Amino acid sequence: MLEVLAFTTPNSLKVPIALEEMGLDYRLIPVNLRQGEQKTEDFRGLNPNAKVPVLIDRHAGPGAQDVVLGESAAILVYLAEKSGKLLPKEGIQRGKVFEQLFFHASGLSPAFLQAFYLTLQSSPDPEAKARALGEVDRVLGVLNHYLELHPYVAGDAFSIADIAHFGWIWRHQAIGASLDKFPFVARWYEEVSTRPAVVTAIKKTVALAQ
Amino acid sequence: MLEVLAFTTPNSLKVPIALEEMGLDYRLIPVNLRQGEQKTEDFRGLNPNAKVPVLIDRHAGPGAQDVVLGESAAILVYLAEKSGKLLPKEGIQRGKVFEQLFFHASGLSPAFLQAFYLTLQSSPDPEAKARALGEVDRVLGVLNHYLELHPYVAGDAFSIADIAHFGWIWRHQAIGASLDKFPFVARWYEEVSTRPAVVTAIKKTVALAQ
Repeated sequence: MLEVLAFTTPNSLKVPIALEEMGLDYRLIPVNLRQGEQKTEDFRGLNPNAKVPVLIDRHAGPGAQDVVLGESAAILVYLAEKSGKLLPKEGIQRGKVFEQLFFHASGLSPAFLQAFYLTLQSSPDPEAKARALGEVDRVLGVLNHYLELHPYVAGDAFSIADIAHFGWIWRHQAIGASLDKFPFVARWYEEVSTRPAVVTAIKKTVALAQ
Repeated sequence: MLEVLAFTTPNSLKVPIALEEMGLDYRLIPVNLRQGEQKTEDFRGLNPNAKVPVLIDRHAGPGAQDVVLGESAAILVYLAEKSGKLLPKEGIQRGKVFEQLFFHASGLSPAFLQAFYLTLQSSPDPEAKARALGEVDRVLGVLNHYLELHPYVAGDAFSIADIAHFGWIWRHQAIGASLDKFPFVARWYEEVSTRPAVVTAIKKTVALAQ
């Protein structure tokens, strides 16, 4: 049984989506960020970066050691290689999945996160807010371009790269962004939202804060 | 012959370091960011995100198509799998390399980039600057913790994760950061700096702006 330490966050959501899509057994363990549980010594022992999600795969390492991994996208790669699903084994299609995973991690995710931080401030600097939402629109424009050419972000097949992008785009309304200007992102978002595995994972992730 | 479109930037540097370490033949092609060459239609045809580096592996795809990849870390993964070097084939060690690659992409790289942007402003907001350098110190502290436990960022062996982190830490002085408080990062930085492949790659990357 895989254990996932998580909370109701965009990065957490990615992991149960992948696990549901892959049909792997797992247990979600809440880490209440509102109470700072990610900053405890115990949690930092699992992830010194003090962030959810963290995956624990008991006795899966050499000498039956536990595999403990942070970073949502690294967890997606680990699960894809464990299950043999949602990540092409070779060639350009595999390369494009990694390109999108790293575009997500270094581009889309920081842009959304910055805009999210500004929504938490009582009176954010209007210039900073405009700049943050400008970068959100820029990265959504890049994604729109890919999704005009292909049904999924890394090509013809649904992959862990779609799961990564979906995690943050799931919260686009919360940061004040709109998909209206990005019809191909909107089409993809609607389709991915209705996948049974995604519906189930969202329910379980939202329940972590309840 | 692999082609690398690049400039004198932290993300660009990672690719020639990997190619030198792996002993692969390559040609660096300058994309002058100061003249906005990354925003041309031709360049956006290769990478819609309008960023260097981009790797072109001619006739390597299905039906002898060219493989064209953006995102420095995705290029590192592609080259590691092509050469069979600097990325463990399985197990927890492989997982830890991906954890560090994504910690780099989503944590260290945005922190350094944000601090770098502020150095470009003539009179940056002191609060914003302090916050940016605080986050730089936080991520360097996380890295220092890993490097206290292991010689390299993802364990006992030098890997593409070291190359990713080195790219940005190479510019720590330019953003006003110091490694003095992070003795294990400083030890690692000194050692990686003197690897012959790294020395050669830095020379070639710096020459792109000359």
